[in-house]
Amino acid sequence: MNEPDPDATERTDPPRPALSLKRPDDPDATVSSLTEAIVASYRDLELIHHLAHCPLPSNDAVVGIVLDVTELLFPGYRGRQDLNWDNIDYFVGSVIDSLRGRMTEQFSRAFRHDALRRAGRDCEQEPPEACPDLCRRKGAETGDRLLAALPALRELLVDDVRAAYEGDPAAAGYDEIVFCYPGFAAITLHRIAHALVGLGVPVVPRMIAEFAHARTGIDIHPGATIGRSFFIDHGTGVVIGETCDIAERVKIYQGVTLGAKSFAVGPDGDLVRGQKRHPTVEADVVIYSNATVLGGETTIGRGSVVGAGVTLTKSCGPNTIVTVEKAQLRFREAV
Amino acid sequence: MNEPDPDATERTDPPRPALSLKRPDDPDATVSSLTEAIVASYRDLELIHHLAHCPLPSNDAVVGIVLDVTELLFPGYRGRQDLNWDNIDYFVGSVIDSLRGRMTEQFSRAFRHDALRRAGRDCEQEPPEACPDLCRRKGAETGDRLLAALPALRELLVDDVRAAYEGDPAAAGYDEIVFCYPGFAAITLHRIAHALVGLGVPVVPRMIAEFAHARTGIDIHPGATIGRSFFIDHGTGVVIGETCDIAERVKIYQGVTLGAKSFAVGPDGDLVRGQKRHPTVEADVVIYSNATVLGGETTIGRGSVVGAGVTLTKSCGPNTIVTVEKAQLRFREAV
Amino acid sequence: MNEPDPDATERTDPPRPALSLKRPDDPDATVSSLTEAIVASYRDLELIHHLAHCPLPSNDAVVGIVLDVTELLFPGYRGRQDLNWDNIDYFVGSVIDSLRGRMTEQFSRAFRHDALRRAGRDCEQEPPEACPDLCRRKGAETGDRLLAALPALRELLVDDVRAAYEGDPAAAGYDEIVFCYPGFAAITLHRIAHALVGLGVPVVPRMIAEFAHARTGIDIHPGATIGRSFFIDHGTGVVIGETCDIAERVKIYQGVTLGAKSFAVGPDGDLVRGQKRHPTVEADVVIYSNATVLGGETTIGRGSVVGAGVTLTKSCGPNTIVTVEKAQLRFREAV
Repeated sequence: MNEPDPDATERTDPPRPALSLKRPDDPDATVSSLTEAIVASYRDLELIHHLAHCPLPSNDAVVGIVLDVTELLFPGYRGRQDLNWDNIDYFVGSVIDSLRGRMTEQFSRAFRHDALRRAGRDCEQEPPEACPDLCRRKGAETGDRLLAALPALRELLVDDVRAAYEGDPAAAGYDEIVFCYPGFAAITLHRIAHALVGLGVPVVPRMIAEFAHARTGIDIHPGATIGRSFFIDHGTGVVIGETCDIAERVKIYQGVTLGAKSFAVGPDGDLVRGQKRHPTVEADVVIYSNATVLGGETTIGRGSVVGAGVTLTKSCGPNTIVTVEKAQLRFREAV
Repeated sequence: MNEPDPDATERTDPPRPALSLKRPDDPDATVSSLTEAIVASYRDLELIHHLAHCPLPSNDAVVGIVLDVTELLFPGYRGRQDLNWDNIDYFVGSVIDSLRGRMTEQFSRAFRHDALRRAGRDCEQEPPEACPDLCRRKGAETGDRLLAALPALRELLVDDVRAAYEGDPAAAGYDEIVFCYPGFAAITLHRIAHALVGLGVPVVPRMIAEFAHARTGIDIHPGATIGRSFFIDHGTGVVIGETCDIAERVKIYQGVTLGAKSFAVGPDGDLVRGQKRHPTVEADVVIYSNATVLGGETTIGRGSVVGAGVTLTKSCGPNTIVTVEKAQLRFREAV
Repeated sequence: MNEPDPDATERTDPPRPALSLKRPDDPDATVSSLTEAIVASYRDLELIHHLAHCPLPSNDAVVGIVLDVTELLFPGYRGRQDLNWDNIDYFVGSVIDSLRGRMTEQFSRAFRHDALRRAGRDCEQEPPEACPDLCRRKGAETGDRLLAALPALRELLVDDVRAAYEGDPAAAGYDEIVFCYPGFAAITLHRIAHALVGLGVPVVPRMIAEFAHARTGIDIHPGATIGRSFFIDHGTGVVIGETCDIAERVKIYQGVTLGAKSFAVGPDGDLVRGQKRHPTVEADVVIYSNATVLGGETTIGRGSVVGAGVTLTKSCGPNTIVTVEKAQLRFREAV
């Protein structure tokens, strides 16, 4: 569905005219003439409509699922606020019951959409992986596996909270971190999204990552591997690419990019997808604000510090401090 | 309305006292005494209230309009999800019908507010451009022109989706881009806002741009000119100024600023508004993360590459690669 | 409550296994077995639940309070749009009446939560400062003091609006700034949060700051001191640390960090909290996009200009222009 036109990469056609904003041809433009023109454009340009296709996961439903999962991870902070040891079983049971149905629906849509997308728009009949019953079973099973993984996720997140408290002198306590810190919200959502990547769910992890990105300004690809006790402070502008490999106790500040250098192009002229393009960061590394580290073969050695504003495209060994040379600055008097 | 006090730029008055947070004079502070003090402050400080003025466009209403326009551009992705070739006419017709009334109301408020603002707070009688009937007619006509331009907008956006797919090895398909990518959301909203600038609508384009900015972290001034097949990856922190001129097939990464160097000041000491202050970017240029390009006379030549973290305040010719010198970094061992 | 385990900083335990995503042991995973496992995890990992604790302030309620306070500061821009001199007293009175009750509730929760947190989870009996009646009285009084400070806050904000208009050639008028500018929204929310810091309210200022951060991408710690006529343009990625001291008429662009160099560690190995860690910025300074200024002893002298992309870790005197040396760039032809 919606696969690229084979001619899409042709770039030699003459420049098309810019957007025309002249009056509608019919000066008494009516609903019907406007409707006709827009629907005609759906027939001409199929790439960006989703008519008569199998339903995509609903963004709102996925966000609702993620917020409920977050409430199961940290009960009592947001949402229901009178939870105690007497009512907690009922609360958790009813949230889980509701989540199972919603996850089944949304995850099965994702499986089916992906199977059809892979088969391509021109396939004669639906591939067996797109069978609605099969997708539903996979959706249900995946949802249960995610719920079964929540205690293990909580263990990871306890270490992340501790890393935040130990890494930020402005933190007044643990509750504030769980409640307010965007860096903690981002790693929580990433760990959920990454678990779903591990379970093979398509599309949904990316939707969760973009929800986190919009809320926090922190853009972590759901495929990125991130070790225990991870802390991002402030966080706006952080980008962590798909094939990053980050070890334990790494601390990252706002504006840091862990990105790709440039993209390999295959013999067909298309991008090669799937190879390691992003850096490796070993344990106990600190990367200060607005530093940029690029390339799949770049490794920051254990215990190293990358200073604010550094742009690094090659590896450094363990226990190295990399900073910008003072000499690069020029001081002069204002006139 | 709300024009500056002529003395506003006087900076020689003695520093006023800092914010007082002492107890209210009346220790039994009541609703009535608090109300009195606040309303008195509206009489003293007129610049930041909007009492008894003509209504501004409603932010919520403008956001609602933009979301519906987006659904017309990409039917079936968000909102209504069971659309097909049998029900699409009814759906599009009813959305257009609803949009026409809401656009007329909000755009006419924008025209009237702007006409009154230009006339100034001290004008004896309302200028003819502020006539409510005239503003309403202009609002209705502008809304219809925007709707009539949607097929052409879809043509532009198809090229933007293709540019995103070709530019990002992590993209799993076109649907994901339309559905999730903040860079694509930002260029979609920009192309709508820029169309409204072309139609002369005041204020509303800026409201749309700030909605995009809040959602994506990408700040594109609605006046900026951007060619076909544009792609912003990740995007948080990108700033594209009002008088930028960007050609076809340009790719920009997170944190890139295309900004002004410094502002010309006229003989009256006020800023000169409206001249070209931001860069020109020719076709097929790539600008990597956190690079900064400044100045209205700065041109990045066709096919050039600006590396991550570069700060550039002068032009470079075509096919130039600009990077940060390695020599600027200092490596030492941690002790 | 939720104080750290004394062993929390022990980092010598063997690496725990990574997240397990295998099928639940019971292949017919049911709501009850999933519930049991999750509730058991709450007993094991107490740090990140909030069961049977005194209620925290509600995030939604705090955001509602802040939006109403903003409407009192700038009546007629958002929310109610037909306000005039005849109905304004009634409107202000009813908003204040509603705010007083809600502020009492949320602020008293914050006082009580903080008193219990300081006492620690192992205290035998609640400390006197946590007495619900006392906290309620403090909550009510603090709310009234904030309301009484609104006229003074409006005086500060008038100067901030003027600074924005004078600093941005793209601004079409004052209304647009109040209505749309994220930098103005951020300073408005900061001035409210900072007033609450001055009144000793715990947690709530940080919640307000993170609301501003999520909406604007601008992260100002509520403890930061900021003088009159402050303007942040564009703003995404700006970070202003807790102990910054910023004088009058300072202008800051997107991506600027005013941060800490590194953190002092006390004799117990814990971070020293509370000392000055962030820069001092004197009057009339401009700091351009993506510049980074670090350190509690770093002072930017009056009237100085810090150029785009500069990383500065030492002071500069008054009227100094600091820029990146051109020599750091390398230009070569693409092949």
